[in-house]
Amino acid sequence: MKLYSFWRSQATYRVRIAMRLKGLAAELVTLDLLKGDQFDAAYRAVNPEAVVPSLVDGEGPVLVQSLAILEYLDEKYPRPPLLPRELRDRAHVRALGQMLAMDAHPLVVPRVRKYLEEELKLDEPARNKWQRHWMELACEAFENTVARDKRTGKFCFGNEITIADCCLVPHMTNMRMLGTDVARYPTMARIFDTCMQLEAFSAEQPMKQPDAPKPK
Amino acid sequence: MKLYSFWRSQATYRVRIAMRLKGLAAELVTLDLLKGDQFDAAYRAVNPEAVVPSLVDGEGPVLVQSLAILEYLDEKYPRPPLLPRELRDRAHVRALGQMLAMDAHPLVVPRVRKYLEEELKLDEPARNKWQRHWMELACEAFENTVARDKRTGKFCFGNEITIADCCLVPHMTNMRMLGTDVARYPTMARIFDTCMQLEAFSAEQPMKQPDAPKPK
Repeated sequence: MKLYSFWRSQATYRVRIAMRLKGLAAELVTLDLLKGDQFDAAYRAVNPEAVVPSLVDGEGPVLVQSLAILEYLDEKYPRPPLLPRELRDRAHVRALGQMLAMDAHPLVVPRVRKYLEEELKLDEPARNKWQRHWMELACEAFENTVARDKRTGKFCFGNEITIADCCLVPHMTNMRMLGTDVARYPTMARIFDTCMQLEAFSAEQPMKQPDAPKPK
Repeated sequence: MKLYSFWRSQATYRVRIAMRLKGLAAELVTLDLLKGDQFDAAYRAVNPEAVVPSLVDGEGPVLVQSLAILEYLDEKYPRPPLLPRELRDRAHVRALGQMLAMDAHPLVVPRVRKYLEEELKLDEPARNKWQRHWMELACEAFENTVARDKRTGKFCFGNEITIADCCLVPHMTNMRMLGTDVARYPTMARIFDTCMQLEAFSAEQPMKQPDAPKPK
């Protein structure tokens, strides 16, 4: 397997967690999204949208879009499962992931930050405010949901890891990078801490990626 | 079943299409997102994120997030199926839907347009430019993907309707409302026209909703 990755990408982190949970190893091909590697013609042939992640799994078309890849991995490599069995519970887990991955993350990706800077001429404080606003708004909705849902357990859904946790941990990692006070979201902070005790989450974190900036 | 809806919401249109394809009827509860109905405490108790759609299907927790709802409907009411059988094909269909529903739509929803207007003080032309920019960028990636993929047929995937079509039609409907030249995306425009021949797509279109503005 071959995974096209960028150390700071939340979407790729989701996929790395799921692969590690399922015991799958991939050759990592890193792109620097801040330098624009994703716009090279060679990469556009892999991923016409010029985003990460892209996953090559044996012969056949490249797989794109992190949530679609998570579902694929769960269908092809079902142990351990990343979705519960009951239909409403599956919908709940998927919806939790989407609250973060659909309703917050697309607003803070490099291409949007670039537009804010180059088209809208926003300075760095205004860009950071934008980013924190959408990340925090998603946290509020997510926290309100998991705090009152009886299905919440050690993890987002009961005591088994699901795709909701694969989305929560990258989101919270980004929140910390932004210097946001995560204690305002106590259930999320607790689940994050629980996940980070596990190798699948901690070993794949952005700062441990081969293309991450070296500590000074 | 009860569906919380707003006539212009792309996300709710996706769900209405899927329900109509599967022969499911729901009582429609309409909210005016432009007036802020979604922030009423009563609706927040239904949907803590204060967005549409929300679906009530019998007893049990409310279902939220359009893509999670589409998967739920397909699992609970499997005929006709909205996902192909082969794993890579399922991933492809899901990824197509997400290219539009994740990478474009979250950037143009009411709360983002509100932020652009009230926080960033963008005038209407600048807000419309923003909206067109992300909608068109997603179209370029989608068109490049479906135009070269051998699996593209009468619909996004072969000759059967999938969740990709449930995402494409609302996206293209919004493109038309914005006055964008959809002919630049010929495969998408062709699939859109094919879908709109079918009642599931045409009868559920925004302008035919009970809460749509009356033609002048």
